[in-house]
Amino acid sequence: MAKSPEEEHPVKAFGWAARDPSGHLSPFTFSRRVTGEEDVRFKVLYCGICHSDLHSIKNEWGFSNYPMAPGHEIVGEVTEVGSKVEKVKVGDKVGVGCMVGACHSCDSCTNDLENYCPKLILTYNGIYYDGTITYGGYSDSMVANERYVVRIPDGMPLDSAAPLLCAGITVYSPLKYFGLGEPGKHIGIVGLGGLGHVAVKFAKALGSKVTVISTSPSKKAEALEHLGADSFLVSPDQDELQAAMGTFDGIIDTVSATHPIMPLLGLLKSHGKLIMVGAPSEPLELPVFSLIIRRKTMAGSGIGGMKETQEMIDFAAKHNIRADIEVISMDYVNKAMERLEQADVRYRFVIDIGNTLAATKPSS
Amino acid sequence: MAKSPEEEHPVKAFGWAARDPSGHLSPFTFSRRVTGEEDVRFKVLYCGICHSDLHSIKNEWGFSNYPMAPGHEIVGEVTEVGSKVEKVKVGDKVGVGCMVGACHSCDSCTNDLENYCPKLILTYNGIYYDGTITYGGYSDSMVANERYVVRIPDGMPLDSAAPLLCAGITVYSPLKYFGLGEPGKHIGIVGLGGLGHVAVKFAKALGSKVTVISTSPSKKAEALEHLGADSFLVSPDQDELQAAMGTFDGIIDTVSATHPIMPLLGLLKSHGKLIMVGAPSEPLELPVFSLIIRRKTMAGSGIGGMKETQEMIDFAAKHNIRADIEVISMDYVNKAMERLEQADVRYRFVIDIGNTLAATKPSS
Repeated sequence: MAKSPEEEHPVKAFGWAARDPSGHLSPFTFSRRVTGEEDVRFKVLYCGICHSDLHSIKNEWGFSNYPMAPGHEIVGEVTEVGSKVEKVKVGDKVGVGCMVGACHSCDSCTNDLENYCPKLILTYNGIYYDGTITYGGYSDSMVANERYVVRIPDGMPLDSAAPLLCAGITVYSPLKYFGLGEPGKHIGIVGLGGLGHVAVKFAKALGSKVTVISTSPSKKAEALEHLGADSFLVSPDQDELQAAMGTFDGIIDTVSATHPIMPLLGLLKSHGKLIMVGAPSEPLELPVFSLIIRRKTMAGSGIGGMKETQEMIDFAAKHNIRADIEVISMDYVNKAMERLEQADVRYRFVIDIGNTLAATKPSS
Repeated sequence: MAKSPEEEHPVKAFGWAARDPSGHLSPFTFSRRVTGEEDVRFKVLYCGICHSDLHSIKNEWGFSNYPMAPGHEIVGEVTEVGSKVEKVKVGDKVGVGCMVGACHSCDSCTNDLENYCPKLILTYNGIYYDGTITYGGYSDSMVANERYVVRIPDGMPLDSAAPLLCAGITVYSPLKYFGLGEPGKHIGIVGLGGLGHVAVKFAKALGSKVTVISTSPSKKAEALEHLGADSFLVSPDQDELQAAMGTFDGIIDTVSATHPIMPLLGLLKSHGKLIMVGAPSEPLELPVFSLIIRRKTMAGSGIGGMKETQEMIDFAAKHNIRADIEVISMDYVNKAMERLEQADVRYRFVIDIGNTLAATKPSS
């Protein structure tokens, strides 16, 4: 019989977990492995709340294991390293994003694209090499193979860096891979949430002209004045839409609700690219003719490899890119999930694990 | 009041045209312009019947003008050239494909991609610079600006070269642009019709490993033994499909009937590309998640620019690539359209204009 989460590994750990598809999170005593020779152990200081945490705790994708301690935007300070670790030392600030393992032998892995490895191991709700379920960053400590550990550059605020480990790389990678984040390119960002707001910042820092495409006119001032977008397009406004037809080199679509893509394809120039990073649960309607007549591309992109994630964090540090966050205490997490469901956050919740988790520990 | 087709230009011409959405074709007396200084005039010898001719004569796309003389896979022999023409001389064998004009100043035109120019002028059913309707190759003569005239290499059979001017460039261009026609690449060709059968030949000549993906097991021997494909996949066969998942670098989808694309996306490797060259009239259902998890691309491609069309014809001549055709007489054209509608042709009808059109001319 499988051991309990509290007994399966030698090192005690504490966090918050969901126990069933209600998604309600509560204190969770579990365990983590000892620090292996290639492992980095760190004290978790902050963990971002990604929208996929919400999907996962409620089993909306149908593959949730409970108890589930979510969190894959994790930063902290190294407390122990294995004998073969070269990347970091005790005291360094580090982060772990969406994954903690892969096969390391397939085409994707050997090309630093572990994120596309068919045997990718997710940071939580994954099955690790030893057969145990992985637990994420809503917890006091993390242990990960150094390949999956990112160095956080000196001086970078840890709280606002955390969301970059998922939201940041998710938008940075396609901007680079599809040749969109370049001077002279006109890029659209659809949806101004956790992903979209950092997409604007990265695309601008990479030299593109950036237009935010949103259904909410109320976000215009924020997009232009605070985030630094060059222009703003209210997508249901037919006049604005018509005037902008054929003017975009690329569009990063961060919206995970079902939505029409025909207007977005129309906004692209010939040979333009619409990149989906939000995954609507229902299939979208694709008018093929609109791809053919101007050789347009529609593609998907999912997070990024570890090498590129480090590159992204270094780039963000250099260009002063941070996520806009609301820092919360651990015991606020269920309320935060409710607000996230209503899109009532600008733009990412980050849990102050270091200062607020311990207080939620049951007395024993 | 606009002049009649017979009177609007100085030079008499004769062909076959549809008069209404019944699509029935019959003899048609019209006129063509005099040979301008950049124009090439040629006697039409052969003209292929493209499936889009069938859509057009029946107004299935909703923008047909009648009378309509179709045909955009046209080859013949030069009879006159304008004073500034440098490309060809009287007696040369030439061809005209899907287009006869464009703006020549936009980004697409200046990059030899006239086919993506928003002001593209189609070879028939288009509106020429002078405001008159264009007439295609189901006719005794053609006049076109030399930019839109392709040289047919010496020794290339004219009848089987004709379909390459549309079907050939339609599949050659995406094989090149999307990096699919390369040694070491595994390419799928969906649908074994006018486009698909030449796609197999081009992909093979470019060095790819080619698998034909078809709903008809009956086409297997033909694909492997006659067309030279490396393998054959019966797409409704779930066992065959499962065994081939994740093994294709790219797929060229030539099918214009509505069909599921989820299985095709599943066949692609990570970063694989599904290129649509057939345009279903209804939107297809696109499961976005299947694009995201392996960074897959879905794109469209429509014919090719004139520079690339010449490159394609030269490549075909060098590698002995021909369309497989059934040569018919002009008076068989309505029967041929009926058979085309039933997919009863292997793989392209070509009208022997040079030897059979004149006999259909009404005595005057």
